[in-house]
Amino acid sequence: MTSSATHTHQAPGAPGYTDRRADHLRRLHKIEGQVRGIARMVDEDRYCIDVLTQVSAVNRALHEVALGLLDDHLRHCVVDAARSDPADAQTKLDELTTTLRRALRL
Amino acid sequence: MTSSATHTHQAPGAPGYTDRRADHLRRLHKIEGQVRGIARMVDEDRYCIDVLTQVSAVNRALHEVALGLLDDHLRHCVVDAARSDPADAQTKLDELTTTLRRALRL
Amino acid sequence: MTSSATHTHQAPGAPGYTDRRADHLRRLHKIEGQVRGIARMVDEDRYCIDVLTQVSAVNRALHEVALGLLDDHLRHCVVDAARSDPADAQTKLDELTTTLRRALRL
Amino acid sequence: MTSSATHTHQAPGAPGYTDRRADHLRRLHKIEGQVRGIARMVDEDRYCIDVLTQVSAVNRALHEVALGLLDDHLRHCVVDAARSDPADAQTKLDELTTTLRRALRL
Repeated sequence: MTSSATHTHQAPGAPGYTDRRADHLRRLHKIEGQVRGIARMVDEDRYCIDVLTQVSAVNRALHEVALGLLDDHLRHCVVDAARSDPADAQTKLDELTTTLRRALRL
Repeated sequence: MTSSATHTHQAPGAPGYTDRRADHLRRLHKIEGQVRGIARMVDEDRYCIDVLTQVSAVNRALHEVALGLLDDHLRHCVVDAARSDPADAQTKLDELTTTLRRALRL
Repeated sequence: MTSSATHTHQAPGAPGYTDRRADHLRRLHKIEGQVRGIARMVDEDRYCIDVLTQVSAVNRALHEVALGLLDDHLRHCVVDAARSDPADAQTKLDELTTTLRRALRL
Repeated sequence: MTSSATHTHQAPGAPGYTDRRADHLRRLHKIEGQVRGIARMVDEDRYCIDVLTQVSAVNRALHEVALGLLDDHLRHCVVDAARSDPADAQTKLDELTTTLRRALRL
């Protein structure tokens, strides 16, 4: 299954992020490289503050991925459920709130 | 009292995390694998919420690394500067506050 | 307009949190008192760490209020728009993503 | 008043934020008013997203207060302990790490 320009090509049952999958994968591969770069900095005894600055950059990049996934999930899974299956929409909103609560570490 | 038996062997100029470098590297390698696992989940069309749960876990693991590096930096670089060079301590506290401000995204 | 036990009594156009308004107000009044308590601690020269602990508690309480408002907004405003007005649903999801981005300080 | 010029006039045992106490109190009183304003918005049925925007603003203001208190604590309590009492410095860094861990909700 490939990422496609429009939502209409999305297979039934595909997760909400299918259209932007290539974008998420590109970001995640970049983040993987950034984490490897941080390990290399630690291995090379680089200054603590410079290492911390890179850790903040990775955290920010991960938050961007999370926000993108969440946005996709709302636009597809939640909106589709709201239109076709109120009980499923209720379930999806319950799990979404649980996920946000965990993301906010409450 | 130092945080570990080998602190006294730390080379002059080594960063504050030298004693716990192996610990930080182990955590970072694990995080790198977790990020790769998230990319695999996206590639396999796994459910958005399950992907988001893993992103939260990586964020938490990165915060643990940041906290460990910060703790090392305070215990070694900042405390050493406070004892031997007040002007350097001042500089180090300025850059620490800048770093925390960025970590908190203020 | 008063807070009511069930969603069906909610007036058209009321914000999503109407059903739980009393709950949100109770939490906000408690938070207001906590902030006043922190000012009193600072005024009384209480130990920095104890003040910081109270600041963390208030931040957590505010996150709970935000999560509750967000959950109400999704369950009512967003779900209602998804069912009756796709263009409005699109607008509501755009503003929601902007709000989450700001909340995460990206 | 700056944190350095008047530090020598600080009473023994005073918390680290004494020099900037007026600044912290001013910020906290403003935050108290902002929280009261959010309660008023909820009471007046204002739109969820507008309420959430104000909650984010208060969270940010609280983080600024926390960062200021932390900076004061490091510059005075921790640096003083590092210079005069290594065991006390150790204790202060332990409690600081605990506080940051709680602030980051790890």
